[in-house]
Amino acid sequence: MKNRINTLKDSFARKELDGYIVTDNSNMLYFAGTICAAGLWIPLEGENTLYSYGVNYESVKSTAKYCRVELMKRNEDPIKKIVEQIKALELKSIGFDALNTVYYMKMRKALKETRLRPLSKLVQELRKMKDPTEVDAIEKAAELTDAGVQAAIDAIKPDIREYEVAAEMEYAMRKLGSDGVAFDTQVASGPRSAFPHGGCTDRKIRKGELIVIDLGARYNSYNADVSRTFIIGKPSPRQKRIYDVVFEAQQNAFENMKAGIKACDVDAAARKTIEEAGFGKYFVHGLGHGVGLDIHEAPSLNPEGKEILKVGNVVTDEPGIYIVGYSGVRIEDTVRVHKDKAERLTKADCELVV
Amino acid sequence: MKNRINTLKDSFARKELDGYIVTDNSNMLYFAGTICAAGLWIPLEGENTLYSYGVNYESVKSTAKYCRVELMKRNEDPIKKIVEQIKALELKSIGFDALNTVYYMKMRKALKETRLRPLSKLVQELRKMKDPTEVDAIEKAAELTDAGVQAAIDAIKPDIREYEVAAEMEYAMRKLGSDGVAFDTQVASGPRSAFPHGGCTDRKIRKGELIVIDLGARYNSYNADVSRTFIIGKPSPRQKRIYDVVFEAQQNAFENMKAGIKACDVDAAARKTIEEAGFGKYFVHGLGHGVGLDIHEAPSLNPEGKEILKVGNVVTDEPGIYIVGYSGVRIEDTVRVHKDKAERLTKADCELVV
Repeated sequence: MKNRINTLKDSFARKELDGYIVTDNSNMLYFAGTICAAGLWIPLEGENTLYSYGVNYESVKSTAKYCRVELMKRNEDPIKKIVEQIKALELKSIGFDALNTVYYMKMRKALKETRLRPLSKLVQELRKMKDPTEVDAIEKAAELTDAGVQAAIDAIKPDIREYEVAAEMEYAMRKLGSDGVAFDTQVASGPRSAFPHGGCTDRKIRKGELIVIDLGARYNSYNADVSRTFIIGKPSPRQKRIYDVVFEAQQNAFENMKAGIKACDVDAAARKTIEEAGFGKYFVHGLGHGVGLDIHEAPSLNPEGKEILKVGNVVTDEPGIYIVGYSGVRIEDTVRVHKDKAERLTKADCELVV
Repeated sequence: MKNRINTLKDSFARKELDGYIVTDNSNMLYFAGTICAAGLWIPLEGENTLYSYGVNYESVKSTAKYCRVELMKRNEDPIKKIVEQIKALELKSIGFDALNTVYYMKMRKALKETRLRPLSKLVQELRKMKDPTEVDAIEKAAELTDAGVQAAIDAIKPDIREYEVAAEMEYAMRKLGSDGVAFDTQVASGPRSAFPHGGCTDRKIRKGELIVIDLGARYNSYNADVSRTFIIGKPSPRQKRIYDVVFEAQQNAFENMKAGIKACDVDAAARKTIEEAGFGKYFVHGLGHGVGLDIHEAPSLNPEGKEILKVGNVVTDEPGIYIVGYSGVRIEDTVRVHKDKAERLTKADCELVV
C-alpha cells in the first residue's frame, strides 16, 4: 500500500489547509491500513497520528502504516488532543471528513480563530480512483459474488423461503473466502420484488413469480455488488417484456460507460430505453454508484450526476423497473471504467428462468 | 408496536423542546417502524413527518407508523424542509439525535434564532428500556446465536480455517431465520485471540491453540451477542488458568447484575476477580454494552459507568484477558436485567475443550 496520506497532503496547498481530521472508518482504513481506530490527525507539517483506545490498540499498532499510533485512556477524547495541537501551532484552516456534530460543536467552541471545513470530497476524489491493488480486491470480491448468484440459481425452487436462498448465497461466498457480506442480502419475491431495497423475509417463493436478488461479497475489505432477477417456470409476456427492457437498458448503459462520459449521460443511456418502453416512472432510482471500501461511494450515476467518469472508477450499472402491487426487475453488475470501454467484474449468469 | 413518538414527546416540556429531528436509522426504526427513510421530524405540535426518497418511498409508506410519509425528489433535502417549518412556526429550541455536521452547519446558518441541541440521550434513555416485543426479538436472536455457537463446536477441527468456521456459524443462524449477522463474526485463533476485535482470516486453526469466537444473529432487526473460547485438545495449565479466571469473572458480574446496581459496580465485580488473579492489565475493555436495534447501545458497563441498571435493560457480560504475543480468552453472554437478578439470554455451551 502506497502512502496515500501524502497524496491527500498534496491537495492542502490548493485548499489552503493546515491539517485534516479523519474519523470515517473506511477513510482510516484507506489511509492507515487499519480499522477500529478513533481518529487520524494529518497535519500539513508534523507527525500523522492515529488515536486508538486500549481495546484495539495492539491490533491497530500491528497494522497501522504511515502514522504514529497513540494510546488513549477510556475517558480521553481524540478531538481534545487534536484541538490542543491546533491551538499550539495556531493553525488557521482545518478540513475534516465526517466529524460528528457533537465533536464539531466542541471544536467550534474551542477554536475561535480556526476555520473548520467539511471536506469529505477531498478523500472521495482519491478513493474513487482505484489503484491496481484495490481493483484486484474488488475483482476477487466480484468472483465470490458470482459464486453467490450461482448458489441462488441452484437453490431456488418452489416453496423455498427467501431467507433460505440468502443463507445458501452467503454460505457459498463465505466458504470461498469472503470477509462477510457487503450489505444485507436481498431476496425479494413476488410483489415484494417491487421494493428496490426489499431485504429478505420468510415468504415462500412460488412458481411464476419474479425474484430479485441483490448481494455482495467483501474481500480484503473491498466490496462487490450484483443483482439478478429470476423466475421459476415460464414468464408471462408482461414479465418477459419488463425483463427485456431492463436487460437492454443495462446493456445500453454498459456500452456508453467509459472514461470521459458524464455520470448523468450514462444514466440517461439506460433511462431512455426504459422511458421509450413506457416504464419511465417505474425506474425510481439512479443508475448506479461507486463501489470500493464502502458499498456506496463516489461517483454517483444519476440524472443529476455531473462528474466525468475516469479510468479507475468502479461503479454499478443497475437499472430497474418497480411496479408496486405487481413486481419488479433489476439487473446489476459491478463495472470497471477503462479509457474506451467498460468491463464487467461480476459475470454471473443472467438467464431469467432458473 | 406502541406509539413511542408520543413517549419521546412527553420529555419535550422538561427539556423545553419545540421539536426533534431523527436521522439515525435505528432510531427511525424504533419510532416509525421502518428503515431507509431520510429523516423524521417530530414537532411538539403538528404532524410527525417521515421524509423518503423515491427509491424507498413505497416500502417506507407500506410500513411506517405514527407519521405522515412525504416523498422527496432526488435533489431535495429533508433538512431544508424541516428548516422551513421551524422558521414558519418560529420554534425556539430543537433537539436532534445524529444530524451530520454538514446538515448542522446548514441549519445553524438558516436558523439564527433557534437553539439546536444534540440530544441523542433522550432516545437512548427510551431504547435502553426494552418492552416485551423487543425482549422477544432479542430472545429469538439469542437462540439463533446459540445455534451458531453449536455449529462452531461441530466445525472446529485441526487445519480448518478461521473463515470456514465463520461460514458454518453464519449458515446455521441464517438457515434458522436470522436476518443476518449483528456484526462481523470473529474467529481469532492462536496469537490472534489476543486481539479483542480480531475478525477472521484464512489462518488454519491448530491443536492446542485458544480460539475466541464472537458472533451474533439478528431477528426482527434486534441483535444478540455471544463470545466463547475453545481449544482443540488439552489446554496447558496457563491456558486453563486464564480461562478459569475469565469464567469466574463473568459469573461474578452476572451474579451482581440486577436492577439498582451502578454500571461501574457490575464492571468492578468482574474486574476485581481478574485483577486479584494478577491479570488486571490484560482486561483492556469495559465489561459490556447494551444490545438492541444496535449491537452497541446504552447502557455502557465500564469502570466509568455511572448509570443505574434498570428492569428492561439488555446488556452483555463479557470480560476478557488478552496477552499480546500469547493468547486471549473472552466469555460473553447477552443478559437481561430483572428486579433481583439477571437472566442469560444466550445459553450456548461453555466448555473450553471442543
